[in-house]
Amino acid sequence: MDLDKVIRKVPDFPAKGILFYDITSVIGDPKAFSYCIDKMVELYGSKKIDAVAGVESRGFIFAAPFAEKMGIPLILVRKAGKLPGTTLKAAYNLEYGKAEVEVHVSDVPKGGNVLLIDDLLATGGTLEASTRLLTEGGARVENIFGVIGLPFLGYKEKLKGIDVTTLINYDSE
Amino acid sequence: MDLDKVIRKVPDFPAKGILFYDITSVIGDPKAFSYCIDKMVELYGSKKIDAVAGVESRGFIFAAPFAEKMGIPLILVRKAGKLPGTTLKAAYNLEYGKAEVEVHVSDVPKGGNVLLIDDLLATGGTLEASTRLLTEGGARVENIFGVIGLPFLGYKEKLKGIDVTTLINYDSE
Repeated sequence: MDLDKVIRKVPDFPAKGILFYDITSVIGDPKAFSYCIDKMVELYGSKKIDAVAGVESRGFIFAAPFAEKMGIPLILVRKAGKLPGTTLKAAYNLEYGKAEVEVHVSDVPKGGNVLLIDDLLATGGTLEASTRLLTEGGARVENIFGVIGLPFLGYKEKLKGIDVTTLINYDSE
Repeated sequence: MDLDKVIRKVPDFPAKGILFYDITSVIGDPKAFSYCIDKMVELYGSKKIDAVAGVESRGFIFAAPFAEKMGIPLILVRKAGKLPGTTLKAAYNLEYGKAEVEVHVSDVPKGGNVLLIDDLLATGGTLEASTRLLTEGGARVENIFGVIGLPFLGYKEKLKGIDVTTLINYDSE
């Protein structure tokens, strides 16, 4: 399937000069959505994965069907203040200021392998912070998956040492 | 399956005096997660549904696997400012102030039936606003699904006229 034909590109969102790659057109097309989930099963179905972590909130959309299909626990990596239990926190830089992600301590499989999932990989900042969280909790993040990759924004350097897979990459704006 | 045994209850979250019903313990248990998705297929699999709408962000977790499994388009109902395309907006009341939800105009199936999904039904405020959005876009919301219902908070009155189904209800705090 040619995902490029399905992914909507919206200029000047969320700010002028930025081309936004929108996955709502992918999940609105059942064949394209199933293609992504099937690809994930192909990529990771035979690997030893103890938990799937989805990054709030679009990461949930791809992490949930995969976790349910594979019968693997689903962990949420959420923005600060959303998870009710005892959490680990990690900060990451935004263009202006900082933000934090959190995970429930009790959700992290100690000594286990985690597949970390987001819809789109850009600077890798959130995913790098999420990796620190899961590592601090005692797990190994050996695989990161995103439907779309924008390597010109630097995620490959930021996530060095981790096996990162995307289904389609865009090389520049 | 006795979902009550799987749902974690966290006292005093997000504020003192509130008992929080947490679905992260459900999705962390593959049998419980699959039980919920299988129940959704049982409830809605034979109904004419043209799109599944998930409410940000925990609604995505149950809407996505169901939509993918059934081969039905998945629509996102998001907080204001997150969707890049042309949107419809609807406001709802919070305890203090107001908030807005949005949906892409082009995602709403004109004249179609939508199944609206969230993890937990409480006051029904977000779901009522989401229903207005989808109706304004030309669709019919005939079914609303939540894993957990807290009817003492009023969602049944707020969503009158719509068929609302939950897998487990808690009658008071």
